[in-house]
Amino acid sequence: MTTVSKSSVSFAPATVANVGAGFDVLGFALYQPGDHVVARFNNTGKVAVKAITGDGGKLPLDAHLNTASVAVMKFLYHLRSDQGIDLEVHKKMPLGSGLGSSAASAVAAVVAANDLLGNPLEKSALLPFALEGERVACGAAHADNAAPSLLGGFVLIRSYEPLDIVPLSTPNELYAVVIHPHIEIRTKDARDILKKTIPLKQAIVQWGNIAGLVAGLLKSDYDLIGRSLSDVIVEPVRSILIPGFDAVKRSAIEAGALGCSISGSGPSVFALTKSLSTSEKVADAMQTEFLAHHIDSDRFISAVNRDGATILSEHHYQ
Amino acid sequence: MTTVSKSSVSFAPATVANVGAGFDVLGFALYQPGDHVVARFNNTGKVAVKAITGDGGKLPLDAHLNTASVAVMKFLYHLRSDQGIDLEVHKKMPLGSGLGSSAASAVAAVVAANDLLGNPLEKSALLPFALEGERVACGAAHADNAAPSLLGGFVLIRSYEPLDIVPLSTPNELYAVVIHPHIEIRTKDARDILKKTIPLKQAIVQWGNIAGLVAGLLKSDYDLIGRSLSDVIVEPVRSILIPGFDAVKRSAIEAGALGCSISGSGPSVFALTKSLSTSEKVADAMQTEFLAHHIDSDRFISAVNRDGATILSEHHYQ
Repeated sequence: MTTVSKSSVSFAPATVANVGAGFDVLGFALYQPGDHVVARFNNTGKVAVKAITGDGGKLPLDAHLNTASVAVMKFLYHLRSDQGIDLEVHKKMPLGSGLGSSAASAVAAVVAANDLLGNPLEKSALLPFALEGERVACGAAHADNAAPSLLGGFVLIRSYEPLDIVPLSTPNELYAVVIHPHIEIRTKDARDILKKTIPLKQAIVQWGNIAGLVAGLLKSDYDLIGRSLSDVIVEPVRSILIPGFDAVKRSAIEAGALGCSISGSGPSVFALTKSLSTSEKVADAMQTEFLAHHIDSDRFISAVNRDGATILSEHHYQ
Repeated sequence: MTTVSKSSVSFAPATVANVGAGFDVLGFALYQPGDHVVARFNNTGKVAVKAITGDGGKLPLDAHLNTASVAVMKFLYHLRSDQGIDLEVHKKMPLGSGLGSSAASAVAAVVAANDLLGNPLEKSALLPFALEGERVACGAAHADNAAPSLLGGFVLIRSYEPLDIVPLSTPNELYAVVIHPHIEIRTKDARDILKKTIPLKQAIVQWGNIAGLVAGLLKSDYDLIGRSLSDVIVEPVRSILIPGFDAVKRSAIEAGALGCSISGSGPSVFALTKSLSTSEKVADAMQTEFLAHHIDSDRFISAVNRDGATILSEHHYQ
């Protein structure tokens, strides 16, 4: 018999997906914000969501609809385990902000459950279950959030069929500024606005840039990263949904950012920099510019997270 | 007064452009075949093509129409030099084969001229003039042949406007097999057959693969290189012009190639391998398969050329 009182507490970070030219294939993790999930054994043989905090009541407690519990159910099914697990999901990041909120919850949940069960799987093997959880929330599994949230760093999704995850090394001094403007974009709207076909000429520009970005990351060439942080296909369309985007982006570059684009499906906007002090200036400039468009915002500044999802010891958890 | 009898002899290698998913943005150089150009001062104040060998009479001797002489004229114009130069172009590679023949001649010509003039420019600074030469031959300058022919190795053309050339390191044991089937494809036909718009879903697959290929090269991950050597946009269309392509590709993979695709606009087909002995087997298999389709072919096996265009000492030149 397992001890019912045992619990595991995990953290999974927010992520920036797409990263300029890497639509649907590239993402990276932040050190903060992120989600906490507490997992405990129960004796019901079922997975249950006992509590959700920080979501403003928006997320479902029904275990078959919640991204965290679905991920854990898929994980237990894979293990052929009929162990029951209670989950608490503590959202510590904005929902619907383009920072991979549902991926973070799903990742945190499977990481906590895996720890609770004595780590039957390697961390990297947990990805498929997190993706199943995200599929519930988003209708589709876009590994460009879940993979970096789980593994940390920059992660390339080379292929979805079959899933081929390529961790990319990250330059030492790479920082991200994320500004979350207080406007709402539904992921579905952000997808529907995209054209189903694109000019070959633009596609060539795009794959030059994604190739340049990957080369810049692996060569620690900050200028190349900056030059490659350009998206001629998705950003021009989606930025229409973000008032002031062009001015915010310009202000980021003028304040010293290597580059700037939309985080995931938005509305958050991210910039990359090569120092913490520049990051502060860039964040100031971007928030000031959003304010000039009468939009309040939150800011997050973080080095690129190299650890991904982690288990927290109990005393770390408040 | 310069000495009229002085001459410089250069070699510029054949190149494989596109390299799977890198249409118009990626290319690499072979050690052989390639072109030789001899440059000598003359007293006419003009650039002249005095001889062309190995072209079967197909290339123009008119200095304003020949890719080699145009490249040298642009170079001299840039230097504000009214020095006259005679060129001999010795084609040591097949024309119209998808191996960057015109780029090799243009590159060899400017490299020889630069040496003749005492190297007023760094080698890498010669690229724009080679591209101008190629523009004459092809109507457009696609740096994915000229850049690797000049610089060697794998070269990413991140951007054309402005031109942004990114040399990529190459794994130590990477070999190329190139099979040149004796069929003709005009570059213009190979371009015209391409669709002007492509589905976004295919573009995403493509940029996952180009990103994976760049990561594989920089990480020396041969398996990743192989998995990433996939082109869902250009190869399916252009391969229609190459009888037996699918069978030839399959035979290459079965014989141990990491991957296989069309070299440039074809008809040459290339495969990458990680050893010389595998390369021989792959070449055998590919040529046998072409023969089964009643097509004779030439084979070239080479490590990836890390040197690019070079100056030959006189006694090296036959």
